Amino acid sequence: MAPPTPRLVVSVDLKKKPWEQALPLHNRWHPEIPPVAHVKVSEVFRVEMVDWTGSVIKDDDSAADVKFIDLSTVHYLSGPIRVVDKKETPAMPGDLLAVEICNLGPLPGDEWGYTATFDRENGGGFLTDHFPCATKAIWYFEGIYAYSPHIPGVRFPGLTHPGIIGTAPSMELLNIWNEREREVEENGHKSLKLCEVLHSRPLANLPSTKGCHLGKIKKGTAEWEKIAKEAARTIPGRENGGNCDIKNLSRGSKIYLPVFVEGANLSTGDMHFSQGDGEVSFCGAIEMSGFLELKCEIIRGGMKEYLTPMGPTPLHVNPIFEIGPVEPRFSEWLVFEGISVDESGRQHFLDASVAYKRAVLNAIDYLSKFGYSKEQVYLLLSCCPCEGRISGIVDAPNAVATLAIPTAIFDQDIRPKAGKVPIGPRLVRKPDVLRCSYDGNLPTTKNPAASM
Amino acid sequence: MAPPTPRLVVSVDLKKKPWEQALPLHNRWHPEIPPVAHVKVSEVFRVEMVDWTGSVIKDDDSAADVKFIDLSTVHYLSGPIRVVDKKETPAMPGDLLAVEICNLGPLPGDEWGYTATFDRENGGGFLTDHFPCATKAIWYFEGIYAYSPHIPGVRFPGLTHPGIIGTAPSMELLNIWNEREREVEENGHKSLKLCEVLHSRPLANLPSTKGCHLGKIKKGTAEWEKIAKEAARTIPGRENGGNCDIKNLSRGSKIYLPVFVEGANLSTGDMHFSQGDGEVSFCGAIEMSGFLELKCEIIRGGMKEYLTPMGPTPLHVNPIFEIGPVEPRFSEWLVFEGISVDESGRQHFLDASVAYKRAVLNAIDYLSKFGYSKEQVYLLLSCCPCEGRISGIVDAPNAVATLAIPTAIFDQDIRPKAGKVPIGPRLVRKPDVLRCSYDGNLPTTKNPAASM
Amino acid sequence: MAPPTPRLVVSVDLKKKPWEQALPLHNRWHPEIPPVAHVKVSEVFRVEMVDWTGSVIKDDDSAADVKFIDLSTVHYLSGPIRVVDKKETPAMPGDLLAVEICNLGPLPGDEWGYTATFDRENGGGFLTDHFPCATKAIWYFEGIYAYSPHIPGVRFPGLTHPGIIGTAPSMELLNIWNEREREVEENGHKSLKLCEVLHSRPLANLPSTKGCHLGKIKKGTAEWEKIAKEAARTIPGRENGGNCDIKNLSRGSKIYLPVFVEGANLSTGDMHFSQGDGEVSFCGAIEMSGFLELKCEIIRGGMKEYLTPMGPTPLHVNPIFEIGPVEPRFSEWLVFEGISVDESGRQHFLDASVAYKRAVLNAIDYLSKFGYSKEQVYLLLSCCPCEGRISGIVDAPNAVATLAIPTAIFDQDIRPKAGKVPIGPRLVRKPDVLRCSYDGNLPTTKNPAASM
Amino acid sequence: MAPPTPRLVVSVDLKKKPWEQALPLHNRWHPEIPPVAHVKVSEVFRVEMVDWTGSVIKDDDSAADVKFIDLSTVHYLSGPIRVVDKKETPAMPGDLLAVEICNLGPLPGDEWGYTATFDRENGGGFLTDHFPCATKAIWYFEGIYAYSPHIPGVRFPGLTHPGIIGTAPSMELLNIWNEREREVEENGHKSLKLCEVLHSRPLANLPSTKGCHLGKIKKGTAEWEKIAKEAARTIPGRENGGNCDIKNLSRGSKIYLPVFVEGANLSTGDMHFSQGDGEVSFCGAIEMSGFLELKCEIIRGGMKEYLTPMGPTPLHVNPIFEIGPVEPRFSEWLVFEGISVDESGRQHFLDASVAYKRAVLNAIDYLSKFGYSKEQVYLLLSCCPCEGRISGIVDAPNAVATLAIPTAIFDQDIRPKAGKVPIGPRLVRKPDVLRCSYDGNLPTTKNPAASM
Repeated sequence: MAPPTPRLVVSVDLKKKPWEQALPLHNRWHPEIPPVAHVKVSEVFRVEMVDWTGSVIKDDDSAADVKFIDLSTVHYLSGPIRVVDKKETPAMPGDLLAVEICNLGPLPGDEWGYTATFDRENGGGFLTDHFPCATKAIWYFEGIYAYSPHIPGVRFPGLTHPGIIGTAPSMELLNIWNEREREVEENGHKSLKLCEVLHSRPLANLPSTKGCHLGKIKKGTAEWEKIAKEAARTIPGRENGGNCDIKNLSRGSKIYLPVFVEGANLSTGDMHFSQGDGEVSFCGAIEMSGFLELKCEIIRGGMKEYLTPMGPTPLHVNPIFEIGPVEPRFSEWLVFEGISVDESGRQHFLDASVAYKRAVLNAIDYLSKFGYSKEQVYLLLSCCPCEGRISGIVDAPNAVATLAIPTAIFDQDIRPKAGKVPIGPRLVRKPDVLRCSYDGNLPTTKNPAASM
Repeated sequence: MAPPTPRLVVSVDLKKKPWEQALPLHNRWHPEIPPVAHVKVSEVFRVEMVDWTGSVIKDDDSAADVKFIDLSTVHYLSGPIRVVDKKETPAMPGDLLAVEICNLGPLPGDEWGYTATFDRENGGGFLTDHFPCATKAIWYFEGIYAYSPHIPGVRFPGLTHPGIIGTAPSMELLNIWNEREREVEENGHKSLKLCEVLHSRPLANLPSTKGCHLGKIKKGTAEWEKIAKEAARTIPGRENGGNCDIKNLSRGSKIYLPVFVEGANLSTGDMHFSQGDGEVSFCGAIEMSGFLELKCEIIRGGMKEYLTPMGPTPLHVNPIFEIGPVEPRFSEWLVFEGISVDESGRQHFLDASVAYKRAVLNAIDYLSKFGYSKEQVYLLLSCCPCEGRISGIVDAPNAVATLAIPTAIFDQDIRPKAGKVPIGPRLVRKPDVLRCSYDGNLPTTKNPAASM
Repeated sequence: MAPPTPRLVVSVDLKKKPWEQALPLHNRWHPEIPPVAHVKVSEVFRVEMVDWTGSVIKDDDSAADVKFIDLSTVHYLSGPIRVVDKKETPAMPGDLLAVEICNLGPLPGDEWGYTATFDRENGGGFLTDHFPCATKAIWYFEGIYAYSPHIPGVRFPGLTHPGIIGTAPSMELLNIWNEREREVEENGHKSLKLCEVLHSRPLANLPSTKGCHLGKIKKGTAEWEKIAKEAARTIPGRENGGNCDIKNLSRGSKIYLPVFVEGANLSTGDMHFSQGDGEVSFCGAIEMSGFLELKCEIIRGGMKEYLTPMGPTPLHVNPIFEIGPVEPRFSEWLVFEGISVDESGRQHFLDASVAYKRAVLNAIDYLSKFGYSKEQVYLLLSCCPCEGRISGIVDAPNAVATLAIPTAIFDQDIRPKAGKVPIGPRLVRKPDVLRCSYDGNLPTTKNPAASM
Repeated sequence: MAPPTPRLVVSVDLKKKPWEQALPLHNRWHPEIPPVAHVKVSEVFRVEMVDWTGSVIKDDDSAADVKFIDLSTVHYLSGPIRVVDKKETPAMPGDLLAVEICNLGPLPGDEWGYTATFDRENGGGFLTDHFPCATKAIWYFEGIYAYSPHIPGVRFPGLTHPGIIGTAPSMELLNIWNEREREVEENGHKSLKLCEVLHSRPLANLPSTKGCHLGKIKKGTAEWEKIAKEAARTIPGRENGGNCDIKNLSRGSKIYLPVFVEGANLSTGDMHFSQGDGEVSFCGAIEMSGFLELKCEIIRGGMKEYLTPMGPTPLHVNPIFEIGPVEPRFSEWLVFEGISVDESGRQHFLDASVAYKRAVLNAIDYLSKFGYSKEQVYLLLSCCPCEGRISGIVDAPNAVATLAIPTAIFDQDIRPKAGKVPIGPRLVRKPDVLRCSYDGNLPTTKNPAASM
């Protein structure tokens, strides 16, 4: 007899706020956030998730929601989910939790998403010094495909994935996080050699009670106060997986997550219909609500057996991944290169971040010649299935990074040719992304020699 | 009637030294190195190249040649080749030179290569603080496949490509290079925010008459002295292409190179049978002698039409690439992740170089559990067709980089499983890479929690 | 604002019989079966379908349902769906209907399927003379993957597709079908040169009132009687598309169907979770209920513009297809060859059907050495994503056909090696397919030299 | 130390006739044709081959050489090559010979090929009744790419492979071949159910002393006379491999050939730069001279262990193949379907050959709308990397076959669109294939409803 349908262990109701859900969501990492569901190894279960902002960003005609967003509340996660083996023994610290993504997708009835850049003074992004305004593009889904009224002339199949999948940290690991991030936040400008051309700020997002949601733990209780002050923000990927934004973690992928607390306490969220390597615009995937169908195995003692710590403690590990077999297939790619020389012409030493920034800027300027605004391309490269590679990291002083774009997503031929650049037919009217003004005072970068 | 066979425009004789060749090689970039051959657009022509060291590294049983190499002589390039159109008008500054790689491969009769790491004090590499010794592995080719007696249990098809392909810089561009690299070399430690965990030194390689070869220009002449003092080293990739080490530039690829001098003066060299993204061990591809069959087109005025400068002058551009259709096909990948936290546990801000370093270190430790020495894996990941990606570059403070390894290159199943790590049958005897001792004094890094 | 969610235009209730559905199903082709739904070009709509037998085959422990099935009732189709343009003008005869498969999958809550062979005397199959018994294997789905308790040791991602998608024939086309099929059914043995080694019978399935369902047309009415006598069975693929069983018509594919009646009257059914080329066991895909999300365009006058008739009338055309971008990715294939020499050693002249039969028999015998029963392999090759190719069709007297099997679907290495054939660990207990006895009298074929 | 370069064991001199070569070629299969070279397992060796006609077809401006070719002399093969193990024990009957294709390509200095159709009365082809004239197209190679002055607007990378690779038959197997082929040749029209729509004749090519070449055996000797009368022609693929024309046997592929005589006596020839599935025009690949670099292993007793005979004797086996990892990558395909209804509208029963014929005819007519002559398309589909599939072989009475064409080989978009068919710019002048008149009397087929 057939096993039961994927068991729905966490459902969400998009008409309700994240904190009103039957199984309330959380937006922090902490060992004491209690599980909201239990699953057994080998069973396929289904988790539903709101979009990372909890429906703050709307399918409307303005980017104001992006500009004024309260980022203290992101990302809303479903879970934690406690995992036990067939004898009901939970996953234990030191185990590996192998999570297979059997299936995933948008939530039925909510087949749309958005890509955005934050305002220079409220979130920023990889190129925030070049693009300080909040902008937004809406994407609609037609099954596997996405298209946007704000970026005409492109349509592509999604490499859909969860931006966030992770296990709960132990208190010891949480303390390590908070300490090292506080150090960079407080002393980074002084003590650390920061890449001078990455303008996103703050340097780190430390625990804050503001905007904090802790699932079943009631706001205002002493317990809540204590945990909210300790709990890590979800912005960066860390030892527990978390917001790793690996665009290839799609259908059929398998993730080997280290277990730090009893039961593993798996949380997921930040579903992306599609994302480019780097997710450069920050709110940069096609962000959406969605579902995951997952299957877990426990590899007992797997952390010691398979992971080597890289740092001062046995907790300094990273997850391992296997990529699934059904990614969109592209055969032609146009590739942009960047070297670690910044926009002012200054040489940086093997800095892959600078090299990648230059590669992305090169691609934006190139594609803007084909009838797009630069803001359109910035959002597009953030969310389409482009590949960002570290090509050379040893040829001092230049790191070489590349950005490869699948040409089939465009309805025009974007390859260089003899003669003038032609402009695709759908771009004549040239609608553009939604955008707000930038009213702040932070410095912006002008490429001295750029067109326009 | 058939067009003539690919015309051999530069041949090399491996029994002769680089400077003894009929068309003498060069190892610097300078506008005044005279062309050694002329080609027309649309004709397919063949260029032969020595390996990047000019046969200094031998197929023998010692890594001493690596340890004591004189790096002032690399890379030996074939060319420059002057390109003209059908009316004999040369490529002109401001044009784009579209170069198609119709075919390439090892030189017949010389079907072998090597991968090596340099000594900490003579060249180094991405992980030189962890692996300070000179090491070497020899690879033999069986058609499309390579295998190494020093790294048993792996065999893979090559994604063969030229490490270096570039046009000659103009004097103006050369001056820009020399100035910015001198700045980083002289003042980098003071004025620039260097990534503290990249230990390769020097910061840049400035022009040096030592080891300099300038093709047809006779050593010792006044002309030679002048040019040798100005001519740029070939180590880093720059605006002219050069040592970009993009592993996907294989059969059928097309490269759009900016033209800075009349005739374009195309040079090529540093053939790689295979390379992983990043070429992490520095002498890191499977280095070999080889041939290229190329076909050129000129896009008149293409620099302005297609490239946007990224910097203070119109010369601050980068080439564009199209990837060819016959890359080796892999369907299963094991992926290692790194975040921008270094081996001491210190947090870095969105530093993709640190994140990639950690991803590579994670992969090395992981694979060493399957019966390999860490040095074997370091060399392997440097030269096998693994993919290095910038996955997340906006989630402060962690950059997330990934390293994806095709599992089919191993003769054992390297995926995590319940139970102990098994070791492949061919690894029982465990031959190892050739290696020298490290006799220097520079500090090395120990991963505090690493196995072994 | 977002367009509405895919509009559900045909729903099915699996607890009801096919003829009890709110929008009753049909299992014949006829121009006068009235549409049950209307759609506009460009809108994405959703169609639900029962499995091809209308739930006759059960997820149970016996193949008796297969043995005694009444095949007069297959295939149950959803539709017809009338297609109009934005001005409400319907698709007209002579147009092309471009149907994009935006998405598809099993019906939620019904995530299982089956593969079967019919009894030699009730349906048969490509190899019915070798395998005369009714057999059945159940498959369960874990998201994109399928596995079977009856065929252990394999698990694979589905290349899910509709077995049947087609437009309604005109009366003229229907008459052509009925005439030519009656000719082969009645006179085939005498007048036509039949391949002597294909033992499936009957030669054709002519219209029959038995088992006939005509959607909204009430059984027992005069209209029903008339149409039931004329309406074509759905077994073969024909000019209208229909049961073409093209395994690659999956997500993102586009089908250009000729339009023969006003409104096009599109019908779909026979959903396959996965199928091998040829669908050799006849009930040979992983048969399931399912849904399609479709989007239509009308190419006015497209039949004349794009299709060339191949036969005596302008109606003798075939659809054209574009394959979608998200097929499962396999890199290693083991290939079996067959030539047009039959099991008795007799030579046939360029007969691709005989060659393919031999290739499939070769593959079955080969894989049976790895611990499978031949019945298991027969069902497996019928439903897994294997590729059947016509390799040579001109080298008289032998046609050469090949069957390529992706090796990654097995949990053991099935490639030939020095030494004995090893048997995979999961096969030690060797469960087998469900099977009935064959109680008939039709001759069967023994491979004179086969093992076992 | 490096192993020696691939050892050249058979070289050819294209300025000499096939029978004048230092190691004379052969064009028949017989156990007594003596080896011309010996190789050991594990060594990589190189074999050079003339094109299948031995340079009869020229790179000139006429198809007369095709029309009047003496087909009794094809195919010229290099070898036989005797294979021994490391202890010098030869491969023995009952073993499997695993042959890896390490590399292959055109002969340096001879980078061109041709595709042709034979005259209806001298060779024919799959569609000879539609295309009775001899035609020819010349192809030139630019590394991995081929283009033809006779078929403008297409250029594609080759999936290069040997049309013929096989071991020598034993006398027993040879007798089986001769007997069964004589039967079909002599009695086929009476006793066998021939597909009536395949018009190639003769039904088989029996041994003939005319045109026979037997390698080292001197013409005119009694030995030669005896062997020439027995030796099998090389046209069809058979149990020994031979002319299987499997287009995917390219770089990195591995072929498991049964061994019938001591030493295996491996022969190769009929190099194809590229071929479509079916090789429909008969002289249908891009035919060329070429080289193979091979490596052999012997699986002792492998025939019994891995192959199951399919016929009355243990010799009725077929080779097995593994496909290599570096095939050209295409992501978009346009697919044409055929059903087993012939051009007269007659229904055939599950006849895959008829279905494939119709699919190819459909594709030819379709592409001819884009500015090509039908003869151009016929040759193109014969030699470009298109895929011919048996999609459905159980849905009586229609077999369904498909032909999938990679759209990227065209310089225009060949997909259906709203509006008129556009014609690519390079086709305006419309050069055509070289062609002769058809002066014979055999009947030809007109598609009654076809355009033009």
